[in-house]
Amino acid sequence: MTAKTPPMGWNSWDCYGASVNEETVRRNAEYMSENLKKYGYEYVVVDIQWSEPQAVNHEYRSLAKLEMDEYGRLLPAPNRFPSAANGKGFKELAEYVHSLGLKFGIHIMRGIPRQAAFLDTEILGTKITAKQIAKPNSICPWNSDMYGINHEADGAMQYYQSIFDMYAAWGVDFVKVDDIANHYAKGEIELIRKAIDNTGREIVLSISPGPAPIEHAQHLMQNVNMWRITDDFWDKWELLLDMFQRADNWSKYAGPGHWPDADMLPVGAILQDYNADNRTKFTKDEQKTMMTLWCFLRSPLMIGAELTKNDDFTLELLTNEDILELSKNSFCARQLYRRGDEIVWFAVRKTGGYFIAVFNTGEAKTKIKVNLLECELTGRYSCRNLWSKESFETSAYIEAQVNAHGTEAYVLIEKVEE
Amino acid sequence: MTAKTPPMGWNSWDCYGASVNEETVRRNAEYMSENLKKYGYEYVVVDIQWSEPQAVNHEYRSLAKLEMDEYGRLLPAPNRFPSAANGKGFKELAEYVHSLGLKFGIHIMRGIPRQAAFLDTEILGTKITAKQIAKPNSICPWNSDMYGINHEADGAMQYYQSIFDMYAAWGVDFVKVDDIANHYAKGEIELIRKAIDNTGREIVLSISPGPAPIEHAQHLMQNVNMWRITDDFWDKWELLLDMFQRADNWSKYAGPGHWPDADMLPVGAILQDYNADNRTKFTKDEQKTMMTLWCFLRSPLMIGAELTKNDDFTLELLTNEDILELSKNSFCARQLYRRGDEIVWFAVRKTGGYFIAVFNTGEAKTKIKVNLLECELTGRYSCRNLWSKESFETSAYIEAQVNAHGTEAYVLIEKVEE
Amino acid sequence: MTAKTPPMGWNSWDCYGASVNEETVRRNAEYMSENLKKYGYEYVVVDIQWSEPQAVNHEYRSLAKLEMDEYGRLLPAPNRFPSAANGKGFKELAEYVHSLGLKFGIHIMRGIPRQAAFLDTEILGTKITAKQIAKPNSICPWNSDMYGINHEADGAMQYYQSIFDMYAAWGVDFVKVDDIANHYAKGEIELIRKAIDNTGREIVLSISPGPAPIEHAQHLMQNVNMWRITDDFWDKWELLLDMFQRADNWSKYAGPGHWPDADMLPVGAILQDYNADNRTKFTKDEQKTMMTLWCFLRSPLMIGAELTKNDDFTLELLTNEDILELSKNSFCARQLYRRGDEIVWFAVRKTGGYFIAVFNTGEAKTKIKVNLLECELTGRYSCRNLWSKESFETSAYIEAQVNAHGTEAYVLIEKVEE
Amino acid sequence: MTAKTPPMGWNSWDCYGASVNEETVRRNAEYMSENLKKYGYEYVVVDIQWSEPQAVNHEYRSLAKLEMDEYGRLLPAPNRFPSAANGKGFKELAEYVHSLGLKFGIHIMRGIPRQAAFLDTEILGTKITAKQIAKPNSICPWNSDMYGINHEADGAMQYYQSIFDMYAAWGVDFVKVDDIANHYAKGEIELIRKAIDNTGREIVLSISPGPAPIEHAQHLMQNVNMWRITDDFWDKWELLLDMFQRADNWSKYAGPGHWPDADMLPVGAILQDYNADNRTKFTKDEQKTMMTLWCFLRSPLMIGAELTKNDDFTLELLTNEDILELSKNSFCARQLYRRGDEIVWFAVRKTGGYFIAVFNTGEAKTKIKVNLLECELTGRYSCRNLWSKESFETSAYIEAQVNAHGTEAYVLIEKVEE
Repeated sequence: MTAKTPPMGWNSWDCYGASVNEETVRRNAEYMSENLKKYGYEYVVVDIQWSEPQAVNHEYRSLAKLEMDEYGRLLPAPNRFPSAANGKGFKELAEYVHSLGLKFGIHIMRGIPRQAAFLDTEILGTKITAKQIAKPNSICPWNSDMYGINHEADGAMQYYQSIFDMYAAWGVDFVKVDDIANHYAKGEIELIRKAIDNTGREIVLSISPGPAPIEHAQHLMQNVNMWRITDDFWDKWELLLDMFQRADNWSKYAGPGHWPDADMLPVGAILQDYNADNRTKFTKDEQKTMMTLWCFLRSPLMIGAELTKNDDFTLELLTNEDILELSKNSFCARQLYRRGDEIVWFAVRKTGGYFIAVFNTGEAKTKIKVNLLECELTGRYSCRNLWSKESFETSAYIEAQVNAHGTEAYVLIEKVEE
Repeated sequence: MTAKTPPMGWNSWDCYGASVNEETVRRNAEYMSENLKKYGYEYVVVDIQWSEPQAVNHEYRSLAKLEMDEYGRLLPAPNRFPSAANGKGFKELAEYVHSLGLKFGIHIMRGIPRQAAFLDTEILGTKITAKQIAKPNSICPWNSDMYGINHEADGAMQYYQSIFDMYAAWGVDFVKVDDIANHYAKGEIELIRKAIDNTGREIVLSISPGPAPIEHAQHLMQNVNMWRITDDFWDKWELLLDMFQRADNWSKYAGPGHWPDADMLPVGAILQDYNADNRTKFTKDEQKTMMTLWCFLRSPLMIGAELTKNDDFTLELLTNEDILELSKNSFCARQLYRRGDEIVWFAVRKTGGYFIAVFNTGEAKTKIKVNLLECELTGRYSCRNLWSKESFETSAYIEAQVNAHGTEAYVLIEKVEE
Repeated sequence: MTAKTPPMGWNSWDCYGASVNEETVRRNAEYMSENLKKYGYEYVVVDIQWSEPQAVNHEYRSLAKLEMDEYGRLLPAPNRFPSAANGKGFKELAEYVHSLGLKFGIHIMRGIPRQAAFLDTEILGTKITAKQIAKPNSICPWNSDMYGINHEADGAMQYYQSIFDMYAAWGVDFVKVDDIANHYAKGEIELIRKAIDNTGREIVLSISPGPAPIEHAQHLMQNVNMWRITDDFWDKWELLLDMFQRADNWSKYAGPGHWPDADMLPVGAILQDYNADNRTKFTKDEQKTMMTLWCFLRSPLMIGAELTKNDDFTLELLTNEDILELSKNSFCARQLYRRGDEIVWFAVRKTGGYFIAVFNTGEAKTKIKVNLLECELTGRYSCRNLWSKESFETSAYIEAQVNAHGTEAYVLIEKVEE
Repeated sequence: MTAKTPPMGWNSWDCYGASVNEETVRRNAEYMSENLKKYGYEYVVVDIQWSEPQAVNHEYRSLAKLEMDEYGRLLPAPNRFPSAANGKGFKELAEYVHSLGLKFGIHIMRGIPRQAAFLDTEILGTKITAKQIAKPNSICPWNSDMYGINHEADGAMQYYQSIFDMYAAWGVDFVKVDDIANHYAKGEIELIRKAIDNTGREIVLSISPGPAPIEHAQHLMQNVNMWRITDDFWDKWELLLDMFQRADNWSKYAGPGHWPDADMLPVGAILQDYNADNRTKFTKDEQKTMMTLWCFLRSPLMIGAELTKNDDFTLELLTNEDILELSKNSFCARQLYRRGDEIVWFAVRKTGGYFIAVFNTGEAKTKIKVNLLECELTGRYSCRNLWSKESFETSAYIEAQVNAHGTEAYVLIEKVEE
């Protein structure tokens, strides 16, 4: 089973937008291998527009010319990814990432390149051409590089198979398919699911952008390993505040092989234009709130930062093993209640015990008291704060002083009477 | 805390509609005391229209004259409840029910009687009159006995207090307030909550009819002990099938003091017109499906049958201690998935272990196989079927042959390696 | 045919709200007879709540007790209408109005009095009682005196016949039925239509409040003589501005026997609380705009003022024969166009020629030029300004300086070449 | 003023779909000149896809290659329009049509060719290229040849000017712009309006497909000469029946220079695949109903037939001068009422008198009687049936036996008493 627990790793988008290059990927992979791997981070993902030679920032150039092979399959632009020269694709880069003990991922857009349709390229191994499967009206609203595919057309399956076979041959472990989740292109999702299965390679299927429609929850669980539950997430409190409702809606659909994705963690150095030292606008409390919520929800954890610019706080935030335990060793998480600014989450620890988090979404520090009876916990518990690491014994109540926009989280283990 | 676990008992509606009388209540209470009390059933609830002398069936007579005191408070019609003669209300009947070791409940409609407004009666202990708090446009769509109350008017709180004080004095333990949940009369719900709290008596507050709006879930959890999640539920498969979606939507809101209510159990002898032997149209499999779903959801369990006409199957159904254990000793229940006709629920057993139910909503017997990995259960388990009582050991999978519209349910206890 | 041209008259509401009395009606009728009758004004209408003894202003007293006969028919409160004493109803007042050469009208609410339902009065000439036809949930949102009627019930037609027979016997010529037009109680409208026809008396049927739903336009034309196209209209520019769109929507439905009603003219002394000299807040230009628009639309013209307090401007406004000619001698009116602040209306003069109005809805005086080609008028015309009375000759264009919120209107007669 | 009265002519779509050619256009123009010109028909319009060499029927070939000049302007495919060889465009064909005393029209799609964007052609007289004005997401849902234009981009106006200058140079008198009316591309409509005005040539601007949104009626009247009020109209009774409501909604917006367009007349030989003798499925009565309704509405009259295959009935239908008089000599038309299956229209004759039509939308012949009082006609009239040509005198009523789906129509002239 692919993605038995929520995938963890790094993604180039928050920092490099459409202009990520090989050197950047290698540098971040090396950092991950040295500093993050032992905590479970493993995926190194090259996000959008790697086939566009002229991309220089987060913008898309309208109607740009892309690197493409004779079968209408996009290739990395060699000026940005030198190891991809001569049609080698991401093979060398993937090998390098694997050599670090990590896994390699890429981003793609749903569909077939517009320029393949114009040139009417043949689909590999067939006599069918691009025009026969392209839907000229099915275009991503914010990037017009591709035409959607008529999933019922002869050649549609063959086309998707031809690209995923190539990715598998490159050694890709993770594919984030874009322009497919929010409007829910069900037919194409199913073709892609089948194409991945056919490769025989274990490849995580991640779909974007959000919000994925919750009425397709059952279909998502059966076809996709992770799906975005929100539009792009950035370092703004309103977006984080909004995520509580989304997490509440989606938490029950998290499970082995299928994870609701709250999007990348915009921490540390992000959006930096390669020079300036732009750093996340989230306060430390907000970042802890984010990590706590993501881990209770069991969202994938994909870091958005330029990793080599992590400061101590960022590294500690990302490597708090007590919080990360939720990702692999909790289940049945849910929002217990939300009362005014006070939100409480609860999860069961698989190997015994419970997790409780309290959140203060208000603008002032406040005391939050959780009646353990509301969690149906009626015993006596040893209790450890996952952030401060303080331990204490309790029954009946947990009480915490919680900062504005902040959180406290606990693990509780029942004490057996002797 | 009132209603720490889901309330269990009997309600007169399914069998007697608007025409329940004292003899019926006593007879069913006696049966409950002898046969059901030891399994947790305890509430005996007199449903709608007990103040209407002429009610003879499930119909409401438009603009009927009701029994009422000088303060605009409705009283039981003495021709139907002899012990209520001379303004004694339900005091004697409640005492009798208490003497059987049970609890006594009543139904009321939101608001103040229309006839109190016409006569402009004074509200007890005030100089305020009925016309001053009545909202002549706020009328239940299917029963026009009452006017809603302007919850901000002087006198509104006093009126609700005056009736709940009377109910407390009668010894009432449970009040089902009708015409308040689906259109969500928030202001009146809060007045009633306060009035109950002020009585100092532990009284379960149940609201009706459903569906209560899910966007008020947090308010419901804080103010109400049980709320209907559906319109009236009857013995039709379509309604039961529909309940799976409702249960999935609401299960996360179940907890001590606040329970989503899937409505009465239409089993055994119902709708009987006092003569004919009308019995539930549900098949035995459907009844087991209903009990299993209600218990995973932890819905209150209110029996709709004339209890004295229970046959063996009905009694066994209602007293299956393994299924009833879910009500008091499970938590974190949720629908794990729904694939075609196959639905799987999962819950955690508080005192160790797990519950799993499989449902077949299809029209033919079918084999259902649950991959325990999808439940994140990776050990070896001793497993007991809650209905057939068979025990076996398993790891990795549970497999069941499930009848059309039927269910199988299990408790799993992990086996510790020695 | 009733209401061959748009009804004209006076209505008590704008000035006296729920508290109109006999002396007021007589006084205004006398004024109308002397000053307005010769211009076509003829209906004197007693508006709402004439059966409520305690009404003193525009407010309704919730659950008030009304004057009623033994058959559940409301009667005028004798303390307010002395001639109605001893159950005589409006007979004497109607006779007095007739003696002045005018016609007499009343307002009623749809339905049967709530108090008739409580007392369960018999319907005249039947053994059917009020409770059998009353719909306790069908209540006007702003006045709870009445219950709507189940128009399919036995007794429903008889009840409406009993009240309209009484009105016909009183000599009523006009009935404004309220709480019936905006939610469109189609069944009751049809009963009332039939009841009026059965009386054999020519009675104008006016329905209220607006807006009547335009999708019922064909039904309105066949059943009702005038229907409100707006909620209550008052002396506010925003409401007048809004009326242009309504008039545009409805003008094509105006015709003999069926008139869209833009509501009373709030001119002169209105809302005066019987003492203070409150007068319309409309500017003179706005009042001319209103009269012009109402007359192009061919709305009924019901004056809201206390007539005896008319000043010279008000009287002239209401008696401009050139404008009033539109009411009886134009047809096929429509908004020709609306461009920014500029609106142009066009109508055909039945006896030869055309009417054109220009409106300036902007905040500054402006020049408006109408290309007669847009009216499809290609000849040479003698042209008269309906307000200034100036005459001139023109072809091709009409040009006017129009005040802010003002109007100019013209009649054009083609000049025949000799 | 362009289009002072509703345009009349012929359009290739109904008969030839995407595959019209020069010979067909010439043949129909010649027929028109000989047989229809004297009745007012004058426009000969080449409909969609004239730049696609391979078009053979009503289908569009996805992503087809089109004939285009170096400035991204589409040209007629010379294999279909031989006179267009060597970049001459429609110049010769237009000249030929003009030589017959007729006018020449073409169809275009909104926007710039997709292939111009791929090749990034320059816009005539600028350094701006196609990619700079193309909106790759703005694509017609049923034909993907074009990209919509960002109407605010530099170059957008220049592009539209470059094509309309070319059309003016060719001698085009009528342009039907497609993919612009129903979703109402307001910005592009305004650019096109300006481009036409700038050419200095009188060119009718027709927009398609319908329904144009009625909330833009005022904008349509000011910018467009004719706009479709319906999706494609074909020879099906349901579509014709539906047109009564549309005609009722739109009739008041008809006037010099701006005409609601009920679409082509699918009469005679249509959809013929060049061989088979496919003819309209409308009955004769339905065809008369259509002509009568179109003429009361004053819709443009564009014939869909292969003209040379007209039979006698079709030719008579299209050349009934009494009906066609409505087009030029009526105004103020409106649906007077619709009662069950009976619909009555009324219009004023500019040079004196009135037009009345009765329609029977039912399935059986029926007698329809119009009370002239409802038309506000109170005199004595000489009356002529526009279809049967019978004359009679009448006052008070017109009575007609009307066939199922049929019509009778009349002109009434008042008789002056001597």
